Amino acid sequence: MPAPRAFGGYQMTETIGAYLIRRLAEHGVGHVFGVPGDYVLTFFGQMEKSNQVQVVNTADEQGAGFAADAYARLRGMGAACITWCVGGLKAANAVGEAFAERSPVVLISGAPGRRERQRNPLLHHKVRDFDTQLKVFEQLTVAAIVLDDPETAAAEIDHALALAKRHSRPVYIEIPRDMAAAEIVAPIPRPLAPEASDPDALAMALAEAVERIEAAKHPVIVAGEELHRFALRTELGEIIHGSGIPFAATIMGKSVFPESDPGYIGVYEGAMGKEAVRDYVEKSDCIVMVGAMMTDLNLGIYTAQINRRFTIYAAKDRVSVGLHAYDDVLMEDFIRGLAAHPWKRRTEVAPFEHPEHPGPFAPSDRAMTVEALFRQINAFLEDDMIVIAEPGDALFGAADLYIHDGARFLSPAYYASLGFAVPAALGVQAAEPKLRPLVLVGDGAFQMTGMELGAIARYRQNPIVIVFDNDGYGTERPMLDGAFNDVPRWNFSRIPEVLGAGLGFKVTTEREMAEALDKAHANAGSYSIIQVMLARDDHSPALKRLTASLAERVKAKG
Amino acid sequence: MPAPRAFGGYQMTETIGAYLIRRLAEHGVGHVFGVPGDYVLTFFGQMEKSNQVQVVNTADEQGAGFAADAYARLRGMGAACITWCVGGLKAANAVGEAFAERSPVVLISGAPGRRERQRNPLLHHKVRDFDTQLKVFEQLTVAAIVLDDPETAAAEIDHALALAKRHSRPVYIEIPRDMAAAEIVAPIPRPLAPEASDPDALAMALAEAVERIEAAKHPVIVAGEELHRFALRTELGEIIHGSGIPFAATIMGKSVFPESDPGYIGVYEGAMGKEAVRDYVEKSDCIVMVGAMMTDLNLGIYTAQINRRFTIYAAKDRVSVGLHAYDDVLMEDFIRGLAAHPWKRRTEVAPFEHPEHPGPFAPSDRAMTVEALFRQINAFLEDDMIVIAEPGDALFGAADLYIHDGARFLSPAYYASLGFAVPAALGVQAAEPKLRPLVLVGDGAFQMTGMELGAIARYRQNPIVIVFDNDGYGTERPMLDGAFNDVPRWNFSRIPEVLGAGLGFKVTTEREMAEALDKAHANAGSYSIIQVMLARDDHSPALKRLTASLAERVKAKG
Repeated sequence: MPAPRAFGGYQMTETIGAYLIRRLAEHGVGHVFGVPGDYVLTFFGQMEKSNQVQVVNTADEQGAGFAADAYARLRGMGAACITWCVGGLKAANAVGEAFAERSPVVLISGAPGRRERQRNPLLHHKVRDFDTQLKVFEQLTVAAIVLDDPETAAAEIDHALALAKRHSRPVYIEIPRDMAAAEIVAPIPRPLAPEASDPDALAMALAEAVERIEAAKHPVIVAGEELHRFALRTELGEIIHGSGIPFAATIMGKSVFPESDPGYIGVYEGAMGKEAVRDYVEKSDCIVMVGAMMTDLNLGIYTAQINRRFTIYAAKDRVSVGLHAYDDVLMEDFIRGLAAHPWKRRTEVAPFEHPEHPGPFAPSDRAMTVEALFRQINAFLEDDMIVIAEPGDALFGAADLYIHDGARFLSPAYYASLGFAVPAALGVQAAEPKLRPLVLVGDGAFQMTGMELGAIARYRQNPIVIVFDNDGYGTERPMLDGAFNDVPRWNFSRIPEVLGAGLGFKVTTEREMAEALDKAHANAGSYSIIQVMLARDDHSPALKRLTASLAERVKAKG
Repeated sequence: MPAPRAFGGYQMTETIGAYLIRRLAEHGVGHVFGVPGDYVLTFFGQMEKSNQVQVVNTADEQGAGFAADAYARLRGMGAACITWCVGGLKAANAVGEAFAERSPVVLISGAPGRRERQRNPLLHHKVRDFDTQLKVFEQLTVAAIVLDDPETAAAEIDHALALAKRHSRPVYIEIPRDMAAAEIVAPIPRPLAPEASDPDALAMALAEAVERIEAAKHPVIVAGEELHRFALRTELGEIIHGSGIPFAATIMGKSVFPESDPGYIGVYEGAMGKEAVRDYVEKSDCIVMVGAMMTDLNLGIYTAQINRRFTIYAAKDRVSVGLHAYDDVLMEDFIRGLAAHPWKRRTEVAPFEHPEHPGPFAPSDRAMTVEALFRQINAFLEDDMIVIAEPGDALFGAADLYIHDGARFLSPAYYASLGFAVPAALGVQAAEPKLRPLVLVGDGAFQMTGMELGAIARYRQNPIVIVFDNDGYGTERPMLDGAFNDVPRWNFSRIPEVLGAGLGFKVTTEREMAEALDKAHANAGSYSIIQVMLARDDHSPALKRLTASLAERVKAKG
């Protein structure tokens, strides 16, 4: 057998499966989350034999999708691998989330072999046609491909992965099972068309922006999640420290830059956020909004009052300065340009209401409240922890947590799918084993995917999971209540008995909570789950503001 | 306020939501499975206030989809109701299953209001565009509609439900949240185009079929699931009893007619089934295959040797007699024609190898085996029980169970999605409270959706769930094994402690199993879960045959 020869990026005598695994590893993917099935077994075998990726089994494909999404947010790319239709369609929601929130997830699906498809037989797992799953994922990804040709497979893989990186969005790669072990032949590269700003437009946009910023009396920066997704956090720091301008974060972008930075003023989210932050941002004569998607939750359900005339906006889909839109300018170039500018550092602008570290919490025997819970969590947080907040009060209340370090807060704060947090912890700790997830999750959401703790136990991870047990869908009750907002009461703290691993706690008072947190902290060898009993009608202040706003909408429009 | 006036099928002063609820009820839907969310709250409120449907909450939308599918198989229509994208996409797999296996599931999704969509804002739960979820479900249903116009809504609902019935397949109905309470105005009916056989073609097909059947020496009937789906079981009985011809069932059609009938010879599934049944069918000079989809599993992964020349085939998608295909003949008309024929009852054909009731099982202290487990279940089955078999060995081994009554066996034996069985039990017992589900489920599949036992406990249902605990994906190990076929070991029998309801058992011997079955039988007030410890490499004979066949395919093609 001849030794493999390098040929451009390709090695001869490499199978399609091996090539995909190698290219994923080169993009930083060291773990692939998934559930096997007969159409994808060959590829699972290839992964297991490779030294390049580790298979991480989840209980359900939904969990694999969420874990891969979380992994991608930390590592810059994540992957899930599942079987055809019965696996892939279970992951549709998680892939949809990755699309909405710009997370570069690669969904790899097995499929019937190319030769098996002749004469269109009714093979198991088939919904309507052989391309039904492909068509579904065309809706949910920036590239959906079938590797059915050894001559083009390598180039197609490169192309799809490059698109995932460029857009920071998911792609779908289907491998007919008779192709996984097929050898790549004569690859024809298919590079992405280059993407660049128009130099004149870029120069004009930067000049206009700098002039406005320097002329402004009270400029403010509002930073969002895309700076993290597109690896622009360093540049953000250069802008903040170079200019001395105070900065806020959106809720999706929370902790995109360390909250311990003296220039940080808090989360800006319209009427949902703290009044002082809102005032400061909305009264600014120059809002520099960078990397922030203009979603309803980022905008406090459109309670945000941001005048475009006074706004410099740079996001992946749009760059504008005041009322001038710059269609030919890329966010990345614009932000790098701002970072490179020789700012005169402002000294007259005192850091505004910098959130202080809350200090230790003195627990009493009072019954737990949401407010006290967040104060206790605040005091408990350490530098090596990452907060994963499930949509709902876990997220809204978490906006006020003090996150020391950058990129230590994770939540699908736009797509807002329930069931994300526990499988996300699996993904996070696979991506960064030294980072300890602190998972904040409601009782309803936990019942969707929380049993992925089984996978967490299998891989000996040690997240601390805090279940907000308020007897149902607490965010919906204020909008419109009924028995449909109830969920069965589980003894969450006893799940370790089912899983044969982990530590469980049930707490009703602040003191019990403090003890549980201490024990969970010391329990480095397995996960801990703390069931916190909360009153049904107890909500965080942010949620009260939000649900009032949503209820008005339901009443007005429904 | 004027009294509601009848207008054709429509009542004036009826809201779109109320109309949909009423029409569902008129189609036999008394329960709607689902998970609420803010875009669908108004409709949940309408359901709760109606006396026509009962909301049944599931832990996750996937569970709602499976429950609705099972419900539809028993009631002729089922419905699930979820919120936009984060709910609907979770149900994509279950809807795909309903499409593949012809189950008329109505998926109702909330969505942003018509007025909210102006200027294309980034509303929470949005993947790409406002019609992304609609486009996904266009792939998975026979009708996907948005009720965005009070003038057409009633007609669109009728049309979609009629299509669901006609094809026995799922439909998708999206309600923008500002439309649920909108009043229907001036409905314009949009009836389905009538569907009818060409009378000459029908007469010719029937004459040809009758002539072949009457001339045959050893005719045999192979009955499938579509007879159940299209309400043709009575006609099947008339053919069987009128003609005296022995009959088999496909695995998907198992128990479509009572297995206690003296004419029943067993399940026909090529090399997977019993040799004697296979011989009898494949050597027949006239195979009357009715209501059977020609899927790979129905055909024993294409080990079936059925010569079309000797086959009369009537299914929803094709009617043929020998090599004559009758494109203008409907299955329903053809089968009704055969049922109405004045057969001369055959007396020379002795009922062939009628499966006997297995009689009582005498348990020993031997360790449990799959074979003994099925013998014990066989002896345990009663007339008011329905077997729900999860794909995998639970299904393959169950082929040999003796199902007394008709339509008492449920399994996605074509689509073969894991995670169906437990939520299906919820659907089954909502549809027929007096029917007691006996759920056969593998350890891997249970970990996907088994916690829907929480919903089962909430609604005080009493299924008996038997978990085949063989430490992983047992059907895959013989094909290609690796750590990816392992699943975490759960103490399934302790789940009642988490749920605060139910009885749990862990059994390792036949005698323990017998005791657990007795106690579960007596436990009429809640569910029971029996964790059966099985050796890792212990499989049913049918599975051994199947996996050998699949492994060959993986090796040859992968």
